[in-house]
Amino acid sequence: MATFKAHGERLNAMLITKILNHQGIKTRFLEPKDVGLIVTGTPNNAEVNPETYVNLKRIKLNKDERIIFPVFYGITPAAHIATFSRDGSDITGAILARGFNANLYENFTDVDAIFYSNPHIIDHPKPIKKMTYQEMRELSYAGFSVFHDEALIPAIQGEIPVNVKNTNAPEKTGTLIVPEEGFTAKKTITGIAGGKNFAALYLRKYMLNKGAGFTLKLMEIFNRHHVSYEHMPSGIDDLTVIFKKDVLNDQLIDVICNEIQTSLNPDQMQWIDDYAITMVVCEGMKDKLTLCASLLYPIGKKDISIQMINQGASQISIMIGTRRKDKETVIKTIYDNFIAED
Amino acid sequence: MATFKAHGERLNAMLITKILNHQGIKTRFLEPKDVGLIVTGTPNNAEVNPETYVNLKRIKLNKDERIIFPVFYGITPAAHIATFSRDGSDITGAILARGFNANLYENFTDVDAIFYSNPHIIDHPKPIKKMTYQEMRELSYAGFSVFHDEALIPAIQGEIPVNVKNTNAPEKTGTLIVPEEGFTAKKTITGIAGGKNFAALYLRKYMLNKGAGFTLKLMEIFNRHHVSYEHMPSGIDDLTVIFKKDVLNDQLIDVICNEIQTSLNPDQMQWIDDYAITMVVCEGMKDKLTLCASLLYPIGKKDISIQMINQGASQISIMIGTRRKDKETVIKTIYDNFIAED
Repeated sequence: MATFKAHGERLNAMLITKILNHQGIKTRFLEPKDVGLIVTGTPNNAEVNPETYVNLKRIKLNKDERIIFPVFYGITPAAHIATFSRDGSDITGAILARGFNANLYENFTDVDAIFYSNPHIIDHPKPIKKMTYQEMRELSYAGFSVFHDEALIPAIQGEIPVNVKNTNAPEKTGTLIVPEEGFTAKKTITGIAGGKNFAALYLRKYMLNKGAGFTLKLMEIFNRHHVSYEHMPSGIDDLTVIFKKDVLNDQLIDVICNEIQTSLNPDQMQWIDDYAITMVVCEGMKDKLTLCASLLYPIGKKDISIQMINQGASQISIMIGTRRKDKETVIKTIYDNFIAED
Repeated sequence: MATFKAHGERLNAMLITKILNHQGIKTRFLEPKDVGLIVTGTPNNAEVNPETYVNLKRIKLNKDERIIFPVFYGITPAAHIATFSRDGSDITGAILARGFNANLYENFTDVDAIFYSNPHIIDHPKPIKKMTYQEMRELSYAGFSVFHDEALIPAIQGEIPVNVKNTNAPEKTGTLIVPEEGFTAKKTITGIAGGKNFAALYLRKYMLNKGAGFTLKLMEIFNRHHVSYEHMPSGIDDLTVIFKKDVLNDQLIDVICNEIQTSLNPDQMQWIDDYAITMVVCEGMKDKLTLCASLLYPIGKKDISIQMINQGASQISIMIGTRRKDKETVIKTIYDNFIAED
C-alpha cells in the first residue's frame, strides 16, 4: 500500500522533470533512494532518521539546475518504501530544506496567507505578514489549520525560514515564519485561534495540594487508558484537567470517572463537555505588561464568563478558557479591539 | 512527652474551673477522657477520630453552666494521651464546636481581626468583617498567618460559623467566617495575601503535550522524593511546576533536576528560585466579569512582569505569579486601587 501511494508521487515528479527539461529548464530528478532519505516506523506512518541530514549534506547541487523530488515517502534501512502519515508533502519539503540548508522553504498551499484569525469567524481577516515558529505553533494548537504544524519541524530544527504561499497566486507575499532570534514583534497581537473541541474534568478535594500523590494517581489512570491531557490549572483545593475531545469517548469518560472516584475519592467531580480554548499569541507580549488586562476587559464587558486564564512561562500567548458557545464572541471581540484597528 | 505537654493544659483548665466556681459562675471541668475525644496517629501529631463526634453528641450540656475543657490533646483508643501537632488549641475548639453543634465558634487570637492584607506590607489595613470558609482557605494558602487554617476543618465540616477575635480586646467584633451558602459578597475584593516562599521549575520540550506520560514520569520523580508540588500551569510545549520552598533544599533540587534530565530529556530546564504568589480572593468574582482585567491593568502599569495568571474553576480567586521582589508592589497596587477606596 505504501509503495502504491508513493508511486503516484514518483511518476508525477518524473513527468514534471521531463516537461521542464523539454522547456529548456535544466532539471534533475532525485528521489529518496538517490539522496538517502531514510525513514523508520510503520509503513504508513514513517519518521525521518537523523542520518538523512548527513546524507543530504553530501548531495552536490548545481546553481544552474533545478531539482524535482517526489514527496510523501522515504526508504527504510532495508530499502523498502514507507510513507509519512499525512501532510507528507510538507514534511518532505521541510526535510530537504533542512538537509540542503536552504535560505528559504516555500510551502505552497491553497490560501493567500495565514490569517490573523479564522475566516469562518472573522469576515475577511487580515493576513499575517511575519511570525515566529513558536507563534505559529501556539496558533496551530488551538485550531489554525492551514497546515499541520508538525510537518514543519525539520525546517524549524534547521532554522530555515518558511514562506507559506498560495499555489494559485504565487505572486502574493504570503506569510513568513521565522526563528525567534532577531525577530521583533511589530503588532500588538500576531494572531488569535480558537479550538472548541475541548472538554474538562473538574475535581475538588479539601487539602488537595498537600500531596503529589493525587496528581500521580490521576496520571496513572490517564496513562492506563492512553489518554493524554492538555492542561491542568489548579486552585488551592481543586484541579481542572483539560482534554482534547478526540482522545475520549462517552464510555471511556465514565470508566475514567469511576476509577477516579474509587482511587481518589474527590469531594466534587464534574465533567464539562463544552469547553473551548482561545489562544491569543504575540511574541512581544512579555514587554506589553498591560496587554492581558486590556484583552480581558472587553470580553468581560460582553458578559462572557471566563473559565480559565492561563498566561504561562513562555510569555508569548494567553490562553482563555470559556464555554463553547462563547468562543466566537471572544475571538470577534479581540479581533475588533486589537487587530482591525491596529 | 505528649502526656507532659498535655498536663499543663489540663492543670490550667482545672484551675480556671475552680476560680470561676469560686466567683459564683457555675462551671464544669470536662476533659477528653470524659467526653470521648478519641485520636489516632503519632503521639505528637494526633488526628481526631470520627467517633469523637458521636461521643460528643451524647454529652448533656446545661444552659446555666459553663464548660472548661483543656485543649491540645485527646486520648487514643488505648486511653493514652496524644497531642495535636500545632495550633492544637484551635483544633480542640473546632472539634467541640462541631461536636456540640454550636451556634458560633469564637476563636481568640492576638489581633483585632483578620485584615484585608498583611500589616507588614500595608500600613493599617482594614479589617475583614465577614468572609466564607473558602475565602479564608485561599487567603491562608498564600500567607495569611493569623491561624493555621487546617485547625478550623472540624468547624467547617460542621458548618459552624467562626468568629476570630482578639483576646486582649474581646469587645471588638473581629472577623466572622461563615459557610458559602447564603453568603453574598458586598465588597469587590475580600482580601489579598502574598507568599514569597515559592520556587518554580520551568520545563520545555517540543510536543510536550502529546502524552500524559511526561507528567506521569514527572510525578513519579517528585513522589519518589516525597516532594509535593503546588501548581502546574502549562503552555503548548512547556510546563511550569511551582513548589513551596520548604519542601525542598539545594541538594534535593539538584537530584530532581538530574533525574528529570535523564528520564524526560527536556529541551530546556530552568530553576526559578525567587517565585512569589499573590492571591486575590473574592466570593463574588464570578459575577464581576471585568475584575481580572481591572486588577491586572494597574500592575502592568507599574512595570511588573507577571509570570503566571491563574483563574481556575473555583472562580473565587485569581492567582498572580511574579518574581519575589515584585510581590509587595503587587499587593500595594491592588490594595490602593480596590480596597482603600472601596
